Amino acid sequence: MRAFASDNYAGAHPEVLAAIAEANADHAVSYGADPWTAKATDLIRDRFGAQASPWLVFNGTAANVLSLGALTRSWECVVTPDTSHLHVDEAAAPERMAGVKLLTLATPEGKLSAAQIEPLLARQGDEHAPQVRVVSIANSTELGTVYAIDELRAIADVAHANGLLLHVDGSRLANAAVALGASLGDITTAIGADAVSLGLTKSGALGVEAVVFLNDPAPAGFAWLRKQHAQLASKMRFLSAQVVAMLEDDLYLRAAAHANGMATLLAQSVTAIPGITITRPVQANAVFATLPPSLADAVRPDFPFYTWDEATGEVRWMCSWDTTEQDISAFITALQSAAASAV
Amino acid sequence: MRAFASDNYAGAHPEVLAAIAEANADHAVSYGADPWTAKATDLIRDRFGAQASPWLVFNGTAANVLSLGALTRSWECVVTPDTSHLHVDEAAAPERMAGVKLLTLATPEGKLSAAQIEPLLARQGDEHAPQVRVVSIANSTELGTVYAIDELRAIADVAHANGLLLHVDGSRLANAAVALGASLGDITTAIGADAVSLGLTKSGALGVEAVVFLNDPAPAGFAWLRKQHAQLASKMRFLSAQVVAMLEDDLYLRAAAHANGMATLLAQSVTAIPGITITRPVQANAVFATLPPSLADAVRPDFPFYTWDEATGEVRWMCSWDTTEQDISAFITALQSAAASAV
Amino acid sequence: MRAFASDNYAGAHPEVLAAIAEANADHAVSYGADPWTAKATDLIRDRFGAQASPWLVFNGTAANVLSLGALTRSWECVVTPDTSHLHVDEAAAPERMAGVKLLTLATPEGKLSAAQIEPLLARQGDEHAPQVRVVSIANSTELGTVYAIDELRAIADVAHANGLLLHVDGSRLANAAVALGASLGDITTAIGADAVSLGLTKSGALGVEAVVFLNDPAPAGFAWLRKQHAQLASKMRFLSAQVVAMLEDDLYLRAAAHANGMATLLAQSVTAIPGITITRPVQANAVFATLPPSLADAVRPDFPFYTWDEATGEVRWMCSWDTTEQDISAFITALQSAAASAV
Amino acid sequence: MRAFASDNYAGAHPEVLAAIAEANADHAVSYGADPWTAKATDLIRDRFGAQASPWLVFNGTAANVLSLGALTRSWECVVTPDTSHLHVDEAAAPERMAGVKLLTLATPEGKLSAAQIEPLLARQGDEHAPQVRVVSIANSTELGTVYAIDELRAIADVAHANGLLLHVDGSRLANAAVALGASLGDITTAIGADAVSLGLTKSGALGVEAVVFLNDPAPAGFAWLRKQHAQLASKMRFLSAQVVAMLEDDLYLRAAAHANGMATLLAQSVTAIPGITITRPVQANAVFATLPPSLADAVRPDFPFYTWDEATGEVRWMCSWDTTEQDISAFITALQSAAASAV
Repeated sequence: MRAFASDNYAGAHPEVLAAIAEANADHAVSYGADPWTAKATDLIRDRFGAQASPWLVFNGTAANVLSLGALTRSWECVVTPDTSHLHVDEAAAPERMAGVKLLTLATPEGKLSAAQIEPLLARQGDEHAPQVRVVSIANSTELGTVYAIDELRAIADVAHANGLLLHVDGSRLANAAVALGASLGDITTAIGADAVSLGLTKSGALGVEAVVFLNDPAPAGFAWLRKQHAQLASKMRFLSAQVVAMLEDDLYLRAAAHANGMATLLAQSVTAIPGITITRPVQANAVFATLPPSLADAVRPDFPFYTWDEATGEVRWMCSWDTTEQDISAFITALQSAAASAV
Repeated sequence: MRAFASDNYAGAHPEVLAAIAEANADHAVSYGADPWTAKATDLIRDRFGAQASPWLVFNGTAANVLSLGALTRSWECVVTPDTSHLHVDEAAAPERMAGVKLLTLATPEGKLSAAQIEPLLARQGDEHAPQVRVVSIANSTELGTVYAIDELRAIADVAHANGLLLHVDGSRLANAAVALGASLGDITTAIGADAVSLGLTKSGALGVEAVVFLNDPAPAGFAWLRKQHAQLASKMRFLSAQVVAMLEDDLYLRAAAHANGMATLLAQSVTAIPGITITRPVQANAVFATLPPSLADAVRPDFPFYTWDEATGEVRWMCSWDTTEQDISAFITALQSAAASAV
Repeated sequence: MRAFASDNYAGAHPEVLAAIAEANADHAVSYGADPWTAKATDLIRDRFGAQASPWLVFNGTAANVLSLGALTRSWECVVTPDTSHLHVDEAAAPERMAGVKLLTLATPEGKLSAAQIEPLLARQGDEHAPQVRVVSIANSTELGTVYAIDELRAIADVAHANGLLLHVDGSRLANAAVALGASLGDITTAIGADAVSLGLTKSGALGVEAVVFLNDPAPAGFAWLRKQHAQLASKMRFLSAQVVAMLEDDLYLRAAAHANGMATLLAQSVTAIPGITITRPVQANAVFATLPPSLADAVRPDFPFYTWDEATGEVRWMCSWDTTEQDISAFITALQSAAASAV
Repeated sequence: MRAFASDNYAGAHPEVLAAIAEANADHAVSYGADPWTAKATDLIRDRFGAQASPWLVFNGTAANVLSLGALTRSWECVVTPDTSHLHVDEAAAPERMAGVKLLTLATPEGKLSAAQIEPLLARQGDEHAPQVRVVSIANSTELGTVYAIDELRAIADVAHANGLLLHVDGSRLANAAVALGASLGDITTAIGADAVSLGLTKSGALGVEAVVFLNDPAPAGFAWLRKQHAQLASKMRFLSAQVVAMLEDDLYLRAAAHANGMATLLAQSVTAIPGITITRPVQANAVFATLPPSLADAVRPDFPFYTWDEATGEVRWMCSWDTTEQDISAFITALQSAAASAV
């Protein structure tokens, strides 16, 4: 199958599998006291700063909810766009696992702006009102858009000026970095973020993500929080080996650059097809479009993808580390052919 | 490193890695709608019964807490030995994630008996008292002992006669099965268990476990419970491929039989060494013993293992799927040499 | 002090205190097995239907969160206006105590409409998405408005047609009933509501509210849910005696009718004062208005009230069971005097 | 009815009702910014020290769980006797509301000893193990016994030496104080306790308890924790007025002294009756005894009381602030008469 449904339809990058196989020798201390975890830690600190504190977990929901759970108490809440993965795609995990309330904001193209934060703070200090504690944004966003560095810095500045913290859902952080021509640190540590969910799975790992606290010290007791929420791997070396493979020679950025490039190519290619309209800025590895339902139905069996909005018929096409130019040309051909026969 | 510290110091069995590599081709639907997951489901149903409902998760804590969370409401509690992994090794995950209270029982050799259950039920129906809902036992136990089939059936019968459910923590279920000369189904479905945490990681997987509900229907909404607790893998095929590898040709049982055999060999071999006393029945892949602290300290650097009880100096030696006869003879030689030089 | 700040600045109605004193004789079984609780139950069933199941609790937050907690599982959510007490005034209690996620809707005058519900249901059945389970509305609302019977029935019908339940936050239920010229049952049981938070404190009780499930049977285990959340009174007779006093001779409705009448009088009286504008329909016991800040500041020391919206300067004036015509004329006089001296 | 079932079968002391009635005048600021709450705060600080921080709540379960919730994080646990109210009579509220795990200890006569604490601490710092954070004891205990001041100080010292905190469930704190001839502060602040659940309801209040943190500052955010858990009363003056009535002229201690005295009288009186054996030291207001079941059954209809242990037939007789010498002589007469007719 070749699909544009999600970047998690792709498998693991061969370099990642090779790293796992290489780590599979002999005995190693479990739960993280092994050389691969030490190396993964070093690599993350190299990218995010020497004071960064990385904690590997199994998936992106875990990275998000453990980040937020560590930064909040139960009466504190998290401001986030109403399109955020946290709010719409995690089955109420933030409320249950992190124990936080979300305050959601309508945003253009999935991007919250610094100016939206202060109006939410009128009741800080009032014992009846949930207290805002964290701003959480995704970069790149669920709508394939990317926060510019100035936008990030403005959000972090407003947050900090008001005693809040900034969390970045980096499920596709590399896609944002390469889109901005910036490093991972430029768009997190340097702009003042406090914690990042570092996503590697969608970019080519088999399955590993990290909570990275960017300031020293990390929240007290986080080791227990991770263990308690069933996110401490026994054979940790196999998670850490993936991180090493992704970061060591910048496979992470290379894979994201490839995926972004494929999305750009796809967006450029579909514009020539009558009836297809690109609906969002294509800034990372997602293409959003509207097209006639009959056209969507015609090509979907061979090239699966999701309808994003049932009401408008808007669809999402995701490119991944393994999307090829051939995939795109085959898809374009199929669209053209279906469009032609529809006439 | 060669260690007797834990069966999770061992890596992944080569057949498991091969299965992952084989699954790493092309695109696959994420979150479980893939052929590997279908096959894993079939294999689990073959072993546990056609009505069994398997749900793959990342680790054993998750399997335990999601099992128990699905079977209880917040005022209900779980009876379990005070040596259970649930109680002592999961950082209060049952209380936080499953939202259950534990009622712990002192037990000989880690095995709860049917006769201990009814005395706990005097206040069932009393709105002030936590209500007992589940009995949870591990087989094999944390002390390397194994419940006999008659013991299992007696516990299940008492539980059911009193409106309770039986959960089996099968972190080392295969070790129990081979110890009893029984199948996986003989010691779970056939004796009347209601849910099993099926552990595969310690027996040779890279990292996968399953919640298996043995009776139809599974608890309503369990799909959301798993997702909400960050235990739904996006690239599920890589978890499922491991299950297939472990079950298809009974690698699971073969690996456990090997580990049990190594423990038997180790136990037999150490008895010849002066000062070493086996402290628990050796029925699965663990050997518990006491030995002079100086002797333990002398060999531990080369053959890491844990002290189980700081007060008594009792140690635990675990054998795994990859423990070799050479490992054991080298360890025995080291013990003998240290014992001799201590004279 | 005479205030228009909140109906909970008022004390307890003398009939309520008399009922407490009368109940304070001799010994009585604790936790609710007493004659006063039996009588309170009968009275609530008389008003809400023979199948109604009432559970007394200490305050309104408890009534709301226990209602919702009993009707949902952790991955289910509650649709409610973004002005609801649940969302803005309970310090994230719904998320923490009930364990539910809220989906909030922008609404005119605090009233959700039936048409807003179905668009939220596009992802029912999707394991990644929180599942909508309950619609929760307040009647009268936090903005002093009242849902008409047709509006209530339409909401209940849409909810039920989609497998959802309807909860009514009746913190000021009597105010809504008398505003509509309807009985308590007419606006709850008869329109199809499933559960009500029956608020008595704001209307004259010393401190008691009730969760009332309107359909038989009540959610399983609710006795434990109440106890577990610290809402089971030991000397229950003193809560029950208040309920009896409020319902027996319709003190509840009489007190609310008085409060509503005072709000109408206040609204009529202030319109004559230059610079004061009534901003919401005055349908229950609240009057919302804008007025010059200097005018508000001038009268507030003698007649405390809250600013509802710091951004617009909108204020809220609440009338209670003990607000007198003299209170209102004194307040009007103060406003007129301050307005005159401001010229 | 005259009963020995529980001290919460008694009503409210007339001085308490009078204080409520006196507070019921005019308007008062809600939620605690009223003169009665200020006075209650002063009185509690007078008794427990100027740095004490009192927070009124509705009942004893709330006082316990909010105390513990404020002092712990989710992976921390509370050591307590296995007979504690926390463990056996709060429907798993500590686990659900406070979010803590309990570690229970078998204790003689309901009293934990300092020597039992350190053996539980072998795994402090181990990320797999729940971390002990609080020791919680009740004084007087659920078995009617009283910790001596030396015993209290020893427990506090061991706790503090190991980085733990001491919580005292003072549901019947006055009964302990008068039993020891000590002040409330002598048995809490002076011995080094960190937090107290100050129980007033059983001693004569209508319904109010307090969480009292004894050291400055109180846990951050406790105002929100109380509000979030539905324990912030709107008409707070009526809770505070009860506290004032109980503490102002030491009604609290007087009432407890009376109840203790009645228990002593009862214990002395029953010893003359054949077949009745006192089973626990009578140190506060409870008398535990065994007696022939036929004798218990004969008098229970007229003088209700509870069987404490169904297995042994041990019963509990509680005396309260309103137990009279006539109550006791009537009960003794009934027992004698039943004992005689049984011959």
